[in-house]
Amino acid sequence: MPYVNIRIAGTLSREQKKQIAQEITDTLERVAHKPKSYTYIAFDELPHESWAIAGTLLGDED
Amino acid sequence: MPYVNIRIAGTLSREQKKQIAQEITDTLERVAHKPKSYTYIAFDELPHESWAIAGTLLGDED
Amino acid sequence: MPYVNIRIAGTLSREQKKQIAQEITDTLERVAHKPKSYTYIAFDELPHESWAIAGTLLGDED
Amino acid sequence: MPYVNIRIAGTLSREQKKQIAQEITDTLERVAHKPKSYTYIAFDELPHESWAIAGTLLGDED
Amino acid sequence: MPYVNIRIAGTLSREQKKQIAQEITDTLERVAHKPKSYTYIAFDELPHESWAIAGTLLGDED
Amino acid sequence: MPYVNIRIAGTLSREQKKQIAQEITDTLERVAHKPKSYTYIAFDELPHESWAIAGTLLGDED
Repeated sequence: MPYVNIRIAGTLSREQKKQIAQEITDTLERVAHKPKSYTYIAFDELPHESWAIAGTLLGDED
Repeated sequence: MPYVNIRIAGTLSREQKKQIAQEITDTLERVAHKPKSYTYIAFDELPHESWAIAGTLLGDED
Repeated sequence: MPYVNIRIAGTLSREQKKQIAQEITDTLERVAHKPKSYTYIAFDELPHESWAIAGTLLGDED
Repeated sequence: MPYVNIRIAGTLSREQKKQIAQEITDTLERVAHKPKSYTYIAFDELPHESWAIAGTLLGDED
Repeated sequence: MPYVNIRIAGTLSREQKKQIAQEITDTLERVAHKPKSYTYIAFDELPHESWAIAGTLLGDED
Repeated sequence: MPYVNIRIAGTLSREQKKQIAQEITDTLERVAHKPKSYTYIAFDELPHESWAIAGTLLGDED
């Protein structure tokens, strides 16, 4: 551990995931003293129509 | 918050997700006093073969 | 399945959980044709200081 | 319950999922006295590029 | 990875968690060829009143 | 969305959670263009004995 799960609607590029994983892993090392090698990060990219806010599905198209 | 994650085997139509999201968001507002705008609902639709009950995968086909 | 996970900051009374579980299970039966006996609902009640929106922890007190 | 969520990068064959589901369900019955019929197991197979260890995405290819 | 999340209502003894963790880690190595050192297992023990099956909370007492 | 779930064994101080939430929310805005107000972050702090790596529970004490 830590295990971090990032869930978004839509997609992220490989480059974005790389940058986000790097920064979060750095944050957890610097702030919470978790050795980098222990941090797992899993991204879930959901279709817009699988995410609702305020009772309404995101996007009317995909 | 709240964050609600609904996980099923198989798929739901857009219409079904819409209806479910609406009703759950209503329930959380009415019963738990959570303003609708705060409720996130994320649907995960898994292949049948990725779900086991009683040690047996669902469906022998997809 | 379905498996539904409801995560909130703060607590719900037993009565509220009961009502919410009942309504969501009804919704999934009526809209998604999932037999009631298959629906699992798990509530997670997190301390306010374990939930952040917009980069700010909820509540300055617990 | 129990609800077990297994998340991996890459894929598992149907045969592997079957075997894993069977063994985990057995373990939970034998060790934790959970009747088999109550155990749900959900597998999530993520693309390698959606999983980071130590701040680095797994695999440079998929 | 893998990351395995086991969610139950009620509690497990330390001895039970130990045994379950060992067996699941073995299974994932033997069946899915995941090196033991990569497998994370997280147990969540929920109060009975936070788990509903068929729209009814488990246990009327805790 | 996004919804971020950070799971660790042990505890974090309020100050650590605050700092981590702030930095991750910043990262997701800067890198993934997600407006800060949409980002939810939920921390789960598990007892050491509820987390296993390589088939062994963390800590022999709590």
